[in-house]
Amino acid sequence: MIVSGKILVAQSGGPTAVINQTLAGIVLEARRFTQITKVYGALRGVEGIVNEDFLDLTQETSHNLEQVALTPSSALLSSRVKPDSKYCHEIFKVLKAHDIRYFFYIGGNDSADTARIVNEEAKAAKYNLRVIHVPKTIDNDLMLNDHTPGYGSAARFVTQAFMGVNLDVRALPGVYIGVVMGRHAGFLTASSAIARKYDEDGPHLIYLPERVFNLDQFLQDVKEVYDRYGFCIIAVSEGIADASGRPIVTSITREVERDAHGNVSLSGNCALGELLTDQIKEKLNIPRVRSDTFGYLQRSFFNCVSDIDQHEAREVGERAVQMAMWNDLDGSVTIKRTGNYSVDYVLEDFKDIAAQTRYMPDEFINEAGNNVTDAFKLYVRPLLGSGLQQPSWLRAPRVPKLIKNN
Amino acid sequence: MIVSGKILVAQSGGPTAVINQTLAGIVLEARRFTQITKVYGALRGVEGIVNEDFLDLTQETSHNLEQVALTPSSALLSSRVKPDSKYCHEIFKVLKAHDIRYFFYIGGNDSADTARIVNEEAKAAKYNLRVIHVPKTIDNDLMLNDHTPGYGSAARFVTQAFMGVNLDVRALPGVYIGVVMGRHAGFLTASSAIARKYDEDGPHLIYLPERVFNLDQFLQDVKEVYDRYGFCIIAVSEGIADASGRPIVTSITREVERDAHGNVSLSGNCALGELLTDQIKEKLNIPRVRSDTFGYLQRSFFNCVSDIDQHEAREVGERAVQMAMWNDLDGSVTIKRTGNYSVDYVLEDFKDIAAQTRYMPDEFINEAGNNVTDAFKLYVRPLLGSGLQQPSWLRAPRVPKLIKNN
Repeated sequence: MIVSGKILVAQSGGPTAVINQTLAGIVLEARRFTQITKVYGALRGVEGIVNEDFLDLTQETSHNLEQVALTPSSALLSSRVKPDSKYCHEIFKVLKAHDIRYFFYIGGNDSADTARIVNEEAKAAKYNLRVIHVPKTIDNDLMLNDHTPGYGSAARFVTQAFMGVNLDVRALPGVYIGVVMGRHAGFLTASSAIARKYDEDGPHLIYLPERVFNLDQFLQDVKEVYDRYGFCIIAVSEGIADASGRPIVTSITREVERDAHGNVSLSGNCALGELLTDQIKEKLNIPRVRSDTFGYLQRSFFNCVSDIDQHEAREVGERAVQMAMWNDLDGSVTIKRTGNYSVDYVLEDFKDIAAQTRYMPDEFINEAGNNVTDAFKLYVRPLLGSGLQQPSWLRAPRVPKLIKNN
Repeated sequence: MIVSGKILVAQSGGPTAVINQTLAGIVLEARRFTQITKVYGALRGVEGIVNEDFLDLTQETSHNLEQVALTPSSALLSSRVKPDSKYCHEIFKVLKAHDIRYFFYIGGNDSADTARIVNEEAKAAKYNLRVIHVPKTIDNDLMLNDHTPGYGSAARFVTQAFMGVNLDVRALPGVYIGVVMGRHAGFLTASSAIARKYDEDGPHLIYLPERVFNLDQFLQDVKEVYDRYGFCIIAVSEGIADASGRPIVTSITREVERDAHGNVSLSGNCALGELLTDQIKEKLNIPRVRSDTFGYLQRSFFNCVSDIDQHEAREVGERAVQMAMWNDLDGSVTIKRTGNYSVDYVLEDFKDIAAQTRYMPDEFINEAGNNVTDAFKLYVRPLLGSGLQQPSWLRAPRVPKLIKNN
């Protein structure tokens, strides 16, 4: 028997291009059940819950929900608060006061832990509450998921960015470093490999947090590529670290901060790119070197979305509601790959997802640790969706020279 | 009577998303004339001409030319060489040796000067050569043009970027600075204004090279916006300068470079954003501040193109050929606005375009010098093309609080 009551949905952490598909999936599916008396959305994640900042989404139109679904970034806004047990207790008090019987929390691995604690609070209080954690992250680092909603679209952005960079650098050659989001897991940076169409195309080198970064080896790699092609394109995760696990950006800037003028901070998000640029210029004597740090654009850029990602983000929302209501279950919705290419959704235990990070498996990274394997490319390609435009080069024959000898 | 002979086309300077539309326009139109014996494309602009690195584009398929037309960045590669008279003389020698009778040079204001000199060389040598300069630049800074091919698509990128940033910052509030290309002219940075849909939307402040940048005023502006909304989004041209015309990034870094460790260079392309970020953090005591420098992505990002821009880039190429061949004229093709929204193409004198920069007119910039006017928004909107997606916010009513008093 389906329990009557209200639904509460909230979004957590960094935004993605498809997080509102999940919101729409939850709300539209929930509104089909007569047992659901209201569907509330909390503004600003857990902060909104403890403050009772709720929108009554039962009074939102389907049309606008569909428009919101197509809008990137968290429509319910977000929060970076990581609730401890005390905070979760406050959350539970509010849920109870409002007769919330179903709590859907869209977020990454931290939010899975919040969901777990709130679920335990309810059990301890003998309060009938279904809690479902719904996956979301551009980093693709949730355990037990083949991939996560938000990753495919961000990967599409990175791929399109490097496709354009390939052409730009080919037109005016030099060395280019693109710094991509990814503190612990390199999935997003790795997706840049799909940008390669022609033999000369980059990124020629890909550096991920899963491998120890060695500056001397890096410079050697760059020199080898540059000597062969006359240019070199590199994709680097922002989280690359040395053998002791210390992020490269801090290990190189340490000296500088001591010497520099008191007011100067080199902890800006561009620091890694700038540092690698300087190293290449000085140690390899290459004049044209530049870096771009992709920043916020990777996760909210308009009109850059994978249709596969959109559909799956919608589906995890719908399945979350169906699992909670038809099956009376708690847990974390996960995506499993069932074919090439198809998926299904399975509910897993909170504790197997919460506060853990999934890393790039060894079979996705080459032996030298500076590129990805074909296995990875086959893994990631479907996630980028359809209609991915590729570049075309001219193919016309050369004209014989008349003045200069060949 | 149409002179028989060969055509040579070359591309110059920074790439755009539609520069190959112009190439395709020239080649496909030219191939319709029986008087044209060959259509050559020079690889790497003027460097390719003096080296006779030519592709025979008469042997390129129409299908591939159309695919190349959809590909951003210079298909004929590019060069940043600025030819002096001696260099232009070498160029002319090659054109003469190959019986080139029509030279189409796609580029910005520098290339208009090169076209002018080559044209004069030919006249002095009594060699029948039509030279047409064909406009291209994302900066929109060519004189006598209402706007230039490449600008609309880059402006669309900037607009979409700030639309996403608006949502991202609204979800997790703070101060955000987007540094946009634009050394001398602020047209591209100004286009970010189209990102505003809702009252709270940014960019709230827009700083262009056409106005003196005052750091104290800047901080005051930011504080005012931040106090009102709890967040602030700023668009800044990379070329903003102080009252003496010195770029801000050098006037603030001067001290630092003297003190810092010998190896450190703060001349990376992120320096301006990082410096403004530091100033806001220290002087306004705002903790969440970040900047992104959009870099190369603005001009070659795949799948971000204005259809209006595509069509006009194609048309300036076709008209260039038609003007040269049917009318036996030399000059620079310019775009004039004839209605809202329509354009026509007029051939102007090289010397009126060459080596000059068009700036944002006063009526496009507000009095305080930190925003743009409605006149500008009406000017730029058609150039961004159709199908520009906008964000949608939720509109559901608030739920009354039960525990906390309002």
